[in-house]
Parts: sequence; C-alpha cells; structure tokens
Amino acid sequence: METLFKEFKIENNKFIYIPLYTFLKEKIERKELKNKLPSIRKISNFLNISPNTVAKAYSELEKINYVQSFKGSGFFINSNFLFEKKEKNFILENDDFYNVNHSLKIDFINSTPNFSFLPISDIKYAINHILDRDKELALINEGPLGNMELRVAINLSLKNLNISTEIDNIHILSGAQQGIDLISKTLAFSKDNIAIESPTYLGAIKSFKSQDFTIIKINIEKDGLNIFELEKILLKTRIKFIYLMANFQTPTGINLSLKKRKKLLYLADKFDFFIIEDDSSSDLYYSELPPLPLKSLDKNDRVIYVKSFSKIFMPGFRLGFIIVPKLLLPSFLNNKFLSDTNTSSLYQKSFALLLNDGSIEKHMNSCRKQLNSIQNIIIEELLKISNIKFFIPSGGCSLWIELPKNVSSKSVYNKLLRENIGIVPGIDYGFDNFIKLNFSRIEKKDIPEGISRLKFAIDFFQELNLGKLE
Amino acid sequence: METLFKEFKIENNKFIYIPLYTFLKEKIERKELKNKLPSIRKISNFLNISPNTVAKAYSELEKINYVQSFKGSGFFINSNFLFEKKEKNFILENDDFYNVNHSLKIDFINSTPNFSFLPISDIKYAINHILDRDKELALINEGPLGNMELRVAINLSLKNLNISTEIDNIHILSGAQQGIDLISKTLAFSKDNIAIESPTYLGAIKSFKSQDFTIIKINIEKDGLNIFELEKILLKTRIKFIYLMANFQTPTGINLSLKKRKKLLYLADKFDFFIIEDDSSSDLYYSELPPLPLKSLDKNDRVIYVKSFSKIFMPGFRLGFIIVPKLLLPSFLNNKFLSDTNTSSLYQKSFALLLNDGSIEKHMNSCRKQLNSIQNIIIEELLKISNIKFFIPSGGCSLWIELPKNVSSKSVYNKLLRENIGIVPGIDYGFDNFIKLNFSRIEKKDIPEGISRLKFAIDFFQELNLGKLE
Repeated sequence: METLFKEFKIENNKFIYIPLYTFLKEKIERKELKNKLPSIRKISNFLNISPNTVAKAYSELEKINYVQSFKGSGFFINSNFLFEKKEKNFILENDDFYNVNHSLKIDFINSTPNFSFLPISDIKYAINHILDRDKELALINEGPLGNMELRVAINLSLKNLNISTEIDNIHILSGAQQGIDLISKTLAFSKDNIAIESPTYLGAIKSFKSQDFTIIKINIEKDGLNIFELEKILLKTRIKFIYLMANFQTPTGINLSLKKRKKLLYLADKFDFFIIEDDSSSDLYYSELPPLPLKSLDKNDRVIYVKSFSKIFMPGFRLGFIIVPKLLLPSFLNNKFLSDTNTSSLYQKSFALLLNDGSIEKHMNSCRKQLNSIQNIIIEELLKISNIKFFIPSGGCSLWIELPKNVSSKSVYNKLLRENIGIVPGIDYGFDNFIKLNFSRIEKKDIPEGISRLKFAIDFFQELNLGKLE
Repeated sequence: METLFKEFKIENNKFIYIPLYTFLKEKIERKELKNKLPSIRKISNFLNISPNTVAKAYSELEKINYVQSFKGSGFFINSNFLFEKKEKNFILENDDFYNVNHSLKIDFINSTPNFSFLPISDIKYAINHILDRDKELALINEGPLGNMELRVAINLSLKNLNISTEIDNIHILSGAQQGIDLISKTLAFSKDNIAIESPTYLGAIKSFKSQDFTIIKINIEKDGLNIFELEKILLKTRIKFIYLMANFQTPTGINLSLKKRKKLLYLADKFDFFIIEDDSSSDLYYSELPPLPLKSLDKNDRVIYVKSFSKIFMPGFRLGFIIVPKLLLPSFLNNKFLSDTNTSSLYQKSFALLLNDGSIEKHMNSCRKQLNSIQNIIIEELLKISNIKFFIPSGGCSLWIELPKNVSSKSVYNKLLRENIGIVPGIDYGFDNFIKLNFSRIEKKDIPEGISRLKFAIDFFQELNLGKLE
C-alpha cells in the first residue's frame, strides 16, 4: 500500500475523489496496478479519507470501464484491455516532434500551455450558455465556412490588428496546421517551387514535403528573411508562394522589419506569388500594443492569413481561422471538405461568446504577463553563459540560442536528457549550432538549475572539442 | 411589425426569449432586418410578452455583436458586417453535394439527422461531468491516437459486432471522411490502381480523385459487389485497396452476402490488397440484432475498418474511428498529424461516457424505430408507382430507385425542384436512370404528397419520351 501511494499527494481536500481517480486511472493505464483495486476500507484508512470519497473514485473508474465491481468481491481491473505501458503522444517517422515526456524534471521542450492558465470556469459557462440557448442546434454541422457568430467575432477582433476583410473570406479551421496544409494544396502542385524561411516551423515543412513541392529556403537575418536572396531567386524562377511568420518567427523569435514587409508585398505583386502568413504566435506580445501582421499592409490580396487559437489557448478546442481571397475559395473549400468536412459547432459558438465578452482577451493578458516574467528570469540566467548568443524576442514562448562553434546541439541535448532536462536541439531545424528553449510549461523555480546545467553542458563540449578535456 | 413577425410562431412560453433571439438573428443575417431593432416596448406589446423577455433576446444579440445598444436610442444593427444573403453550406467544384436548401417544402435530399432526435440533455450532462471531473485536463491535446477512455469504450462496443482488436489499433478521427482520406493516402500513391463499388459514396470518390488514383469500378448486384468481375481484374492487374460498404451500401442499401464476404477476404490474401470497410450506416439496422461487419470475419488484418459517429448521431461532435493494422501505423499517424493534429479532447471523453452509460445505445434505438417507421410509410406510397423498381434495405435512411427506361433522373430532379421538392438525382452517382430518396429529415405527414408528386413527374417524362405527350 505504501509503495502504491508513495507518489500520491493531496493538495486540497475538497474534491479529493478526483485526484484519487486520476491517480488510479494512470496506474491502471501504465499496468502498475493489476488484477484488483485495494479494498475501499483499506485505502480509506491508509489515506485517512472517508470511505465515500474512495467509493466515488472507484465508481468513476467503473463508469469508464476500467474496473468492474462484483458484489462482495471488490473491484476488478478490466484485464481485457491492452494498455500501452506509456502512451506516446506522437509517433512520427522522424523524431523531430517530441513525445510528451512525463519523466522530464525540467522541461524546455513541451510547447503546450500550462494547464493552470486555462480559464476553465469561463469555458464551462460558455458551453452551457450555448447548449441552453441553441439546444439541438448547438450540435449541428456548420458547413466548411464555419459558424457565422464566430466569423463575426473574429472579423471584429481583426480590426484591432488593422486587418480589414469581409466575413465571406474568413473560414474556421481545426487549428493552423490544417490551414497550412489545405491552402498549400490549393496554391501549388507537386514539384512546384515554394519558398520558406530557414529555419521555420517543422509542421509546415512536413506538410510541404508530403506534397512533394520543391522547397527553396531563404535565410533569416536580424530583421527577418533575406529579401535580396529572395529577389535573386525570383529573377531566375517562379515560386507559387512563400510561407512565413512576420511576428515572433518560429524558431528564431525575429520580427520582419517594416521596410522588408513593404518590399515583400511589392515583390509578390511583381512576381505574382502568394504569401502564407502564419500569425499564431502574435497574441503573445509583451509590449503594450499587439504587433501588426503583414496582412494589415496587404492591399492586393497577396497575403493569406492563418491563425491558430490552439497554440497557447485551449489546445483541446482545436480552433483557428484563415483569410482566403475570394478567387481561391471554391478550390480551398473542396480541400477542406476532403479533410474533415467541418469544425465543431459547439466549440465555435462557445469561442465566439468568449471572444465577444472579453474572456479571451483577459486570459491572453494574464498569459502574456506570465510568459514575459518567465522570459525575464531565463534571460537573467542565460546572461551568465558567456559563450552563447541569443536574440531577445518581444513576445512568444521560446528562445533560439546560438552555441559556441564546434558545439553540437545533439550532444548537448543528449547529455541533458540523461539528467532529465529537456531542450530542443537545433539540428531538428537543420541548425546543429543552435538550441531552442520552449518555456510555456516551465516552472519558475526550476529555471536557475536548468540553465546552470545547460551552461555546464555547453562548457563541457566546448572544452572537449578544444582538446582541453581528456 | 406585422410583416416582420408573420413567420414567427411561439410553441412554448417558457423560454420564449430563445426563439425570439433565433428569429431576429436570422433576419439580421439575411439582411431582412436593417438599421435598428424595433423598440422593446413595441415588440412586447405586439407579441403580448413581457418586456424582460424581449430585453433578454436583445441582450443575447448584443453578446454576439449583431446589435449594439446606445442608451436612450435603442439597439442598432451592426452594419459593419457583410452577411451573405443566404449562407451556402457547401460550395464545391461540381454540384454533386447539395446546399442545405431551407426553402424546400419536402426534402428527400438532406441527409443530416432530425435535430429533435438529439439527446441534448444527456450530452449536456456528459460535458459538464467531464469538465467537473477533469478540469483543465478536459481541454488538453490528446495526441493523434485519441483519448484512451474513448478507445476503451469503442473496443468494448466492438465486441458486440464480433470484432476483436487491440486498443493500440483503434484511432479516433474527426469523422469518417477524414479516415477515408488518410488511410487511402497511406495505402496508395498517385496513379496506383484502387477499386470501388459502382455506385458508391461520393465523398470517397472525391478523396480518391484528388489523390489521382486510377479508379476501377466494380458493379453491384443484389448480393453486393460483382466478385467475379473483381477477380477477373485482379488476374490482370494489381490493386492497392478496395473501398466498400458491406452493410447498407451507399447509395443502393444492399448488403454483401456472406459467401461473397468470404470470397473477398480470400482474394485479398491471394492478391495482396487491403479492404477499406466504411461501416458508418450499420448502426441504423431495423432488425433485432445488428448486422455484422466484414471486419468480424477478418483474420489476417486485411480489413481497415472506418466508422463515423457523426452520420446520424451528433453531427456537431465530428467523431469517428478507424482500426489500422500495426504495420501501417507510423505512416497513418504522420498523415493524421498533417491533417489536423488531433481530435477534440472534451468531446472524446464526453462521448466515451455516453457510450459507457448506455445513452448512445438508447438514442440509436429510438433513431432506428423512427427511421424504420418512416421507411414503411415511404414504401407503402412507392408501391403505388408501378413503373419503378427498388430494393428494400433492412436499415439505413435512404432508398435507391430505378426509374423507367428513358426517364432521366436529372429531368425528374429539375421538375420537382420547381415544386420545392428535393430528391437526389442518380446522375450524380453516374446512374441517370436512378434516384435516391434520403429520409433522415423528412416529416411523416409530407411523405404522401412528396411521393405522389414524384409519381406524377416520372409518368410525365415516361409519356413524353414515349411520344404520348405533345
């Protein structure tokens, strides 16, 4: 009994059946609990909680068919089910996407939001409000364009970003990844030339590779992509589109300068290509006002604007949107239909309500403050490492750090992993001389130790490579 | 005021602000209401309801930003928004998918469920239960495999269909369309041969065409696809997979005979191809016991089983699942990630709860009874038309009807449409001599009139083509 419960901690007595239920559920899934649950009386005595509380947790486990009760004989674990020992959240051909690794002590890899940020009571209110208001109509199909209320709410919120468009051009997505995949299918065919920033978001590269495009990489400078490099290429060859992030570029955190934005739009007109702007990170600005998207300067419908609401806010909602020029609409919607027909109606309406009543803005505000203060702490610690260079983004939730020459990100990654510390090796972005630190889930108290271990690892490999270590 | 409210009916006084809100919302979207809402007092007097009720409806409209109130001046309609006059739910290149046409008087086209079937209070209970139980964890990403509780619940429910698989092989989808698209991408490349039944589900054909497969059509007989035709083809050429529906085939309603099922599995082994079984309709059986899927006979992992829960039950939830053999898993998951990363967590957990506590089965039972009694009424009426032939399926929610020779489905479709009656012309499936009647949303009282108009239209064109009409 003591072994079983050694990791079990009670933080709050009020709803103790929930942590107990979650704890036992995981033990069953990991096959650390087999055959039978301990008797209700035993657990109640051992944890010093009421038998009713234990019984409630057991009944929840029975509801989801993890256990089965037999009168007088107790609760048996449903051994018919083959649970994986530890479920992998991602299994991909290359391991450039990371498993959510629950055993990491200090985690600079996980880029999902800190759950305690989520405004669960606002969300519950919105969902119930919509179910009460629309009844069965809350659960119908919306069609591929998306729910009108949400599109109205998004159109309004876009005005704060100086984007003026029409509701007809706004389409709801199940996240930004879907938008990138669908619009690139719409714009280009197999073998066509397309351009990306280098480095850039891995999900986009995967999508473009799977469509067999010819990918042209444009380097990034301190003020965004190298526009002269792009121009030289355009003089020689036609591209169908360029995919980029003008604000808080992934992974570098760099913003595209105003001068370059204007030049890029000029080139798009001159050389007839589209720009897919992925603006999913721009809500996480630390400044007083939000950074304006490239789209806000777009006069000739050259920019296709894609944005996810899932990135930091409500990953489980899977919502995003895209602004598609009218001429591309029929072909885009055809692709959207093939992909998943349409996006959940209840979520769309609930999200619209939360956008309209200011809950989202309130929530984003607290995310921004939290992330900004975490970034400050990390930077303070990073400044103690003299042999690295990094750019300080004015928003976002990651840092892109240049290692000393001859130090490989893969070595640093592997060394730290053995110490249960996770970082993202730049090699996955094609830059082995860089690492990326994601800080959306890091605990403030863990930062000093994490960075001092990082410093140690970097110094170790630098000295090793300089021949100073045996 | 009288003109505005002439279509407004109050069915139940209790929540009258909701119908009023919905009514006004639609009027605004259709631009039938412009500038300003009538004053609260005026509406309250005219409809003889309390001013508070009207105020509540207005405040809901304000919440979704459709109107804006100015103290003392009333509620102004937000004219910044460009609403389409009537929103099209589908805009596709060919018009073989139908717009949801609200103006149809009698609708044998719409295949979405009758909303009043939906067990809204069960769904509300489940969602709130999960939000209370899992808090923030109800809104996280689940990863592409899907939620474990739902996969456990599905695995259990599959035992009733004699399907024995492992939880590892069950993957949650955002509807069956996504499954068909992803698995076909996994199994075949551009130009590869694949086989389909003819006629078959149009969404699948669209997906296969978009992937540029070489599509081989196999005709359907009274006991399912012509297996000798398939065998002859296999002797000449390799196919990567066949896509089919063994139960209540779309659009014919035909079941594949046991003998042919066994032969098909034998051929799949012998000629090394996969079978994608789309079993989305089989829940709508009218018999005592459910029809068994082809998958239940599959011993060598030749059958990939795809099923949607969205078809008749909870379209807004967008849930389905697929059973994928282990060897195809990494490639399949890669495609799933590109499509939309993963499927809503809260819905998955809520749906698992409803599967486990029997709500789904209860709901499906009442759907089956309702659809069976509607089918009986339609058949009774159809028997009055002597020059048509049709097969009576033992389940599903549509009928596939053979017209007299020389009568074109397109002509019948067009003639009935002018009378505000919708039917599906067989030409969309490549069979101009057939029509399809969908009856998931038809009102019983409208059936006699609808079918007698159909009889008139068929007779009209038959006589016209026989030269009997001038």
